[in-house]
Amino acid sequence: MPDRIEYDSIGPLPIPEHAYYGVQSLRAKYHFSLSQEKLHPLFVKNLAVIKKVAAETNCKANVLTEKTAEAIVRASEEIVDGHFREEFIVDAVQGGAGTSANMNIKEVIAHRASELMGGTKDTYALVHPNDHVNCSQSTNDVFPTAGKLTVIDLMHPLILTLSHLDKVLGEKSEEFTGVLKMARKPLQDAVPTTLGHSFRAYQSAVSRDIHHLNSAMETMYTVNIGGTAIGSSINAPEGYVSRIATNLAEETGLPLKQAEDLFDATQSVDSFVRVSGAVKTAALTLSKMSNDLRLLSSGPTAGFGEINLPAKQNGSSIMPGKINPVILEVVSQVAFEIIGNDVTITMAAESGQLELNPFEPIIFKNLFSSIELLTNAARTLTANCIEGITANKTHCQDQVERSVGIATCFCPYIGYEKAAHIAKESLRTGVSVRQLLLDSKWMSREQINHILDIGQLARGISNSEDNVTPLFV
Amino acid sequence: MPDRIEYDSIGPLPIPEHAYYGVQSLRAKYHFSLSQEKLHPLFVKNLAVIKKVAAETNCKANVLTEKTAEAIVRASEEIVDGHFREEFIVDAVQGGAGTSANMNIKEVIAHRASELMGGTKDTYALVHPNDHVNCSQSTNDVFPTAGKLTVIDLMHPLILTLSHLDKVLGEKSEEFTGVLKMARKPLQDAVPTTLGHSFRAYQSAVSRDIHHLNSAMETMYTVNIGGTAIGSSINAPEGYVSRIATNLAEETGLPLKQAEDLFDATQSVDSFVRVSGAVKTAALTLSKMSNDLRLLSSGPTAGFGEINLPAKQNGSSIMPGKINPVILEVVSQVAFEIIGNDVTITMAAESGQLELNPFEPIIFKNLFSSIELLTNAARTLTANCIEGITANKTHCQDQVERSVGIATCFCPYIGYEKAAHIAKESLRTGVSVRQLLLDSKWMSREQINHILDIGQLARGISNSEDNVTPLFV
Amino acid sequence: MPDRIEYDSIGPLPIPEHAYYGVQSLRAKYHFSLSQEKLHPLFVKNLAVIKKVAAETNCKANVLTEKTAEAIVRASEEIVDGHFREEFIVDAVQGGAGTSANMNIKEVIAHRASELMGGTKDTYALVHPNDHVNCSQSTNDVFPTAGKLTVIDLMHPLILTLSHLDKVLGEKSEEFTGVLKMARKPLQDAVPTTLGHSFRAYQSAVSRDIHHLNSAMETMYTVNIGGTAIGSSINAPEGYVSRIATNLAEETGLPLKQAEDLFDATQSVDSFVRVSGAVKTAALTLSKMSNDLRLLSSGPTAGFGEINLPAKQNGSSIMPGKINPVILEVVSQVAFEIIGNDVTITMAAESGQLELNPFEPIIFKNLFSSIELLTNAARTLTANCIEGITANKTHCQDQVERSVGIATCFCPYIGYEKAAHIAKESLRTGVSVRQLLLDSKWMSREQINHILDIGQLARGISNSEDNVTPLFV
Amino acid sequence: MPDRIEYDSIGPLPIPEHAYYGVQSLRAKYHFSLSQEKLHPLFVKNLAVIKKVAAETNCKANVLTEKTAEAIVRASEEIVDGHFREEFIVDAVQGGAGTSANMNIKEVIAHRASELMGGTKDTYALVHPNDHVNCSQSTNDVFPTAGKLTVIDLMHPLILTLSHLDKVLGEKSEEFTGVLKMARKPLQDAVPTTLGHSFRAYQSAVSRDIHHLNSAMETMYTVNIGGTAIGSSINAPEGYVSRIATNLAEETGLPLKQAEDLFDATQSVDSFVRVSGAVKTAALTLSKMSNDLRLLSSGPTAGFGEINLPAKQNGSSIMPGKINPVILEVVSQVAFEIIGNDVTITMAAESGQLELNPFEPIIFKNLFSSIELLTNAARTLTANCIEGITANKTHCQDQVERSVGIATCFCPYIGYEKAAHIAKESLRTGVSVRQLLLDSKWMSREQINHILDIGQLARGISNSEDNVTPLFV
Repeated sequence: MPDRIEYDSIGPLPIPEHAYYGVQSLRAKYHFSLSQEKLHPLFVKNLAVIKKVAAETNCKANVLTEKTAEAIVRASEEIVDGHFREEFIVDAVQGGAGTSANMNIKEVIAHRASELMGGTKDTYALVHPNDHVNCSQSTNDVFPTAGKLTVIDLMHPLILTLSHLDKVLGEKSEEFTGVLKMARKPLQDAVPTTLGHSFRAYQSAVSRDIHHLNSAMETMYTVNIGGTAIGSSINAPEGYVSRIATNLAEETGLPLKQAEDLFDATQSVDSFVRVSGAVKTAALTLSKMSNDLRLLSSGPTAGFGEINLPAKQNGSSIMPGKINPVILEVVSQVAFEIIGNDVTITMAAESGQLELNPFEPIIFKNLFSSIELLTNAARTLTANCIEGITANKTHCQDQVERSVGIATCFCPYIGYEKAAHIAKESLRTGVSVRQLLLDSKWMSREQINHILDIGQLARGISNSEDNVTPLFV
Repeated sequence: MPDRIEYDSIGPLPIPEHAYYGVQSLRAKYHFSLSQEKLHPLFVKNLAVIKKVAAETNCKANVLTEKTAEAIVRASEEIVDGHFREEFIVDAVQGGAGTSANMNIKEVIAHRASELMGGTKDTYALVHPNDHVNCSQSTNDVFPTAGKLTVIDLMHPLILTLSHLDKVLGEKSEEFTGVLKMARKPLQDAVPTTLGHSFRAYQSAVSRDIHHLNSAMETMYTVNIGGTAIGSSINAPEGYVSRIATNLAEETGLPLKQAEDLFDATQSVDSFVRVSGAVKTAALTLSKMSNDLRLLSSGPTAGFGEINLPAKQNGSSIMPGKINPVILEVVSQVAFEIIGNDVTITMAAESGQLELNPFEPIIFKNLFSSIELLTNAARTLTANCIEGITANKTHCQDQVERSVGIATCFCPYIGYEKAAHIAKESLRTGVSVRQLLLDSKWMSREQINHILDIGQLARGISNSEDNVTPLFV
Repeated sequence: MPDRIEYDSIGPLPIPEHAYYGVQSLRAKYHFSLSQEKLHPLFVKNLAVIKKVAAETNCKANVLTEKTAEAIVRASEEIVDGHFREEFIVDAVQGGAGTSANMNIKEVIAHRASELMGGTKDTYALVHPNDHVNCSQSTNDVFPTAGKLTVIDLMHPLILTLSHLDKVLGEKSEEFTGVLKMARKPLQDAVPTTLGHSFRAYQSAVSRDIHHLNSAMETMYTVNIGGTAIGSSINAPEGYVSRIATNLAEETGLPLKQAEDLFDATQSVDSFVRVSGAVKTAALTLSKMSNDLRLLSSGPTAGFGEINLPAKQNGSSIMPGKINPVILEVVSQVAFEIIGNDVTITMAAESGQLELNPFEPIIFKNLFSSIELLTNAARTLTANCIEGITANKTHCQDQVERSVGIATCFCPYIGYEKAAHIAKESLRTGVSVRQLLLDSKWMSREQINHILDIGQLARGISNSEDNVTPLFV
Repeated sequence: MPDRIEYDSIGPLPIPEHAYYGVQSLRAKYHFSLSQEKLHPLFVKNLAVIKKVAAETNCKANVLTEKTAEAIVRASEEIVDGHFREEFIVDAVQGGAGTSANMNIKEVIAHRASELMGGTKDTYALVHPNDHVNCSQSTNDVFPTAGKLTVIDLMHPLILTLSHLDKVLGEKSEEFTGVLKMARKPLQDAVPTTLGHSFRAYQSAVSRDIHHLNSAMETMYTVNIGGTAIGSSINAPEGYVSRIATNLAEETGLPLKQAEDLFDATQSVDSFVRVSGAVKTAALTLSKMSNDLRLLSSGPTAGFGEINLPAKQNGSSIMPGKINPVILEVVSQVAFEIIGNDVTITMAAESGQLELNPFEPIIFKNLFSSIELLTNAARTLTANCIEGITANKTHCQDQVERSVGIATCFCPYIGYEKAAHIAKESLRTGVSVRQLLLDSKWMSREQINHILDIGQLARGISNSEDNVTPLFV
């Protein structure tokens, strides 16, 4: 099929006849073939949602005829429904604060709407990308608003996934309530705890992350749509400006509201930095937990050996029978990636200039990626690792009995220095702390047994109502 | 004066006779002379506050005698009052999750309390650093709790300083309401705005930062005091555990509450990451603003020349008469430092292992520094720069008149393509957009004047009720 | 087509009949659908190159029969030639230090080699992925070696692209030799320079980057192939270990050599950090240059207006006639991305544990991406921006004449304080520095003209042999 | 003592009578009380060295009289000798690209040189800070040159310290040659190795870091002194410009050379980024090593327990007898700090604008700190940790014997699948791999013993000349 020729301020360019995109999209593609990563499908969908609502609102504000508006709405809906995806040809990394992304959808909608009105792709006489499709809009309010809608779309599955992880961690915590084990402070045997406490702590951290992710997401509800180029709403009629955010809220079902200071909302990108920060912090939680689980599952012989990870795939291409903590390793890698993304987002935010931050495309690419990576990591972590973890209860308990860390429990009764002496002796001779204490005659066998009672150890708190009188009072 | 000899599990060490610190502090000093930065004075104060309240609470829980508790309380109060500062000899960067910091204050209090009870520094017979001063406590609940109290202490002046900046920006915004100027999108002339809008946008961003800093600070109110070593409250009597946080709240006047999951609260440091994130985001706001002001004040001849910074010091050692934007440059440097600190804090948080994060000292050093740097930067920015900024109103307005950017204002009336044609013609010929439009006869002189009315331009929103009928409806 | 069933240590899994990958690749795909990014095609090619050379070397070392080796070699060559790309199904982000990537190619080669030997994909009886395809190898020497080969493959186009940029900058520097303009120190008018000097400085920086990128690339030539699992060469015969690196060097034409300490080479990833550092530094150079060019091209009316960027695409969806510095903006975004990637790589490197760094996959994903992004950014920067830049010579020169910065040139003759006085007067009155000096009678007209001679200004160095006697000697 | 009044372009300011600094230093102190960190003493020394050499060179170039030059030289030498340290009052974090630091030393030298010439601090009539002390110089060549000299000064002790660590690691590697132990790949038991190999690997990595640090330091030898404000050498006589770098080289004994492109050298800070990168990479090596040693020393009961760290201080305030890996923990914290510093330096470098990078002060503060921190960390790591490490040889060897990882050694003889079967059986039944193989009759007792010979295991490489015929050939 022969190409058609399109013109812009630079000159003519042949466009494939079948293409709905136009000259400016194609130029952008030539200039920005950098990441080979396309615009996120949800971002394209949200651009289309905005174009649709804008057309309707423009119509009501008497700056678009009903017929034109209707064609734009229909074309936009087709994009929302997933059509024309291959028409979005511009790279996710692009200059111009998203001008090319906006232009891409404007050209696609203009051509398609023209068709729907009986025209052809050879002319914008019926529907013009700037005058009609972009009517009352600017890249600078459309692009960041679409970015916020996309973050919201992506955050929902993340929060759901973390909520499921939260629940599974809670169940594991119950399951492991009775598994007495040594706590370690910087990897050194410390005092007794239970595996249930460990998983409860992970759950508490994940819960807190969910809370903060929800808070961060709320900053996304304030949008600058209607501010057009710089926040002054230049070229947009009052009737449009006052209604567009409300209409968008209605269309999306989200509690969106127009920013009170549209200048600020157009040039500031701090809300994306905040979301990135919350995502990063949640990633730290998962990475820390994964590091812990890799330690606890280390072995089987020459490691901690307290828990078993579910065997999900062969661990080694050279070592038979080895099950590697592959899921846990991937979670940490995702955290590293997200931390790097946060630095990228931070730098892009710092570099905003005057009425615009021209670096929003890289912010969006990184933020979308961070949220999706964390969602996927949390999902595989839950399903392919956490759910299948089992405890080596006997081994855990043996370690407690053999540990000198339990000498700590006697500090309130015999004092720090005597307890330290017992601990050192135990280490030197291999005789258990329990036996050394019995030999010392400092306390009765009854007292000692009471203090070393498993339930007591796991509970932690030493009662002043204990039948053992502390020595120091 | 001869030294006294003190012993610990490693062996004997001579200690200067006058010193209140002891053997373990001195060893720590030898091992960790890394940063040459001492513990923050407010952090030392907060350690002392905790020691005081712990002694009182222990006394009520019957694990400390009244006499011992009283001596510890008095010694602690002396430290709170600023005495013994030179006794805190350990480096801010230390291993052991703060063990050395805790030991330092324990030794100082034990020696001082012994003195107060009539003893000498030669023995801990009266007051023992571990058995008494640290009674019912562990480094692992004392150190992070003191860290949170210190963050709160440091955040208050930051928030006050930013609130003052907020107010000053608001005043500047009022002052510059009538200064019509060109907005720039990626440094290219865009459309008209006012300098007042610019400063209002800065104010809005600072306001938002204050809000989020306050939110982040609230995460500091949840403390793990009472959890002792790992969160199980091992070695702490019930009567202490249940009252210590409340008592600390009362002493400090802060709405502190004990964490529900003390295991989580002992091993998780995400709240510090969140505060760092909020501080970082506020730093980005100030840096972005500073970058803008450097641009707007560029010149005087070969730059934007829209505003004048107050001359606060000679700008150049070689160029006479030069006033450099030194305050603005220092604000950006502080932002870079804070962003680096955030990465450090992030890495330290990610590296927590099992029941403890041994890297809290570097987290605190960086977080305290970030908050103080931002406070100082905001203070000098407000007083030495923002307050004294003046506008070159005529120059700003001239630029608007000569700009082709105002062609944009005619898009709703003559369409994007005709407006682009006018803009290009104006650029090519030097004839003003206004004149070219008059020549074009596309609109009446009245219509053109109405659209280019200064008030109208500054307001931005083009009314569909304008007496100019848009062409596209 | 019905699926075939394959088994691994986890159990059975149906595999699409046509697939050359096997059960373990498919499991990995299920577990690691994180980034949706596949292994880099060059990385797959290099895995295949290693498999080929390993088979040949194994054959010579008598641990593979000629027939088996030949089949493996042929299958590998097919992959090198670009076949079977869709068979590489595992995510670039994966756990297990690349085990899944290695398994993927092992399965594809085993199945394909079996076919070539007359077998089917239903059995590994003829060619086994571990025993034959992976013979004398481990993921832990294959994966990092393939990573290094890929870095080398990617660095060549980067260095070529930067060399072209270097050349173009040199040409521009020549072209702009005569364009006298104001230098700016922190955006404030400073002293005269030429646009030629500016572009020469950019060229010098790019030259230096090329030098350091080459140096960093050399660290890639040391490979750990032959070290197998941990560097001890376990399970590899002496005849293989001693020849494999040499054979790989021969096959690739690269000066590869086997690491002297294979344990170190297997667990250390610092060479990748070094390459990332060099790439990052080069990205900084391009970003800084881009920021400068955005400043110099700011305007057209209300900016610096010293240079014109080539108009490559419409700049604005709302402002007609606007040409935005889109290429420059994208270069900075790429720099931000690369800086974030460097943080990710740094964290992954720091997290290596004992005999292995399990986080190499994320290191590779980020490093490959950084190199490619910078290559693409440098290419579009050169072709779509630098090459087309023109200077506004008259405007530049006007600014010099009107600037008070030239007062600086008189410091050596009249002293700093008098020069500062002149500068202030000029600013206050608008009278040129030249005129004020003439009026002052401190120097003769001849002297003044000599100092303000354009050639003299551009050259910079003030000769003590000048016919103007400095005042201070 | 009454104050004296000094004036600058801003106005009058009272200065303490005794002070050698002047009005501009004091203003800078007021504006930049940000970090409370003063200029690094070595940096002040290097500023003084430059001032001295500049005075001598100016004298030879006939732009300073011998008498003035001599006074400046003497005053500078006094500073080099450590006098007047308290006169350097400006904050290390400052705007103006170091203008205040340069002004501080200019004022101190001018006042002191005036005194030496018989004048008073009340007038600069004899020696003027700008006209004489700064003669032929600008902050923009003095400040970065002093920065480079300081980096060199700081790098020497770092390299010496790492060289000592290198040697100690080598000795430890020899000492541990015979300690057979399990290697772990992602914390899972892998195959046998020796502790000697582990320490050799650390040594190799440190060696490589030393090499790269030396390379990076070489970039510091190229200085821009003589380029004055922007690299054009404006206001500096030819005779000075051509000799200053050589004279500085002679004075310092360093192979300094003047940059060929002084414009580039004045505005580019990439060399500092390169040094920071090399320091960061070395920090990663130490942190990774420290993480490993913390793992290997974990226990004593419930951990790996392969090595013992020297007990250097009490480990816990609550747990008696506990020795924590405090030195190792501090090394990682230092690494996190250095990584954060690298981000700060990177951002500051990226933000350079046009002829100057105004953010050099924060670059220097961070870079100096990184180098010193790493030096101190390496020093304490060597002396207080590495040197005293001992091995638990028997425990290590026991773990090897009990491990299923040794099944790997039989892959070349019985194939991967049979070896995997043996490994699984051993794990399931607790029967040793050795016994299961004997029972299997697949190999003779002799063959099995040969393969499991300790020397053989440690060496790693399986000989094809072994008296065991591999099965697969």
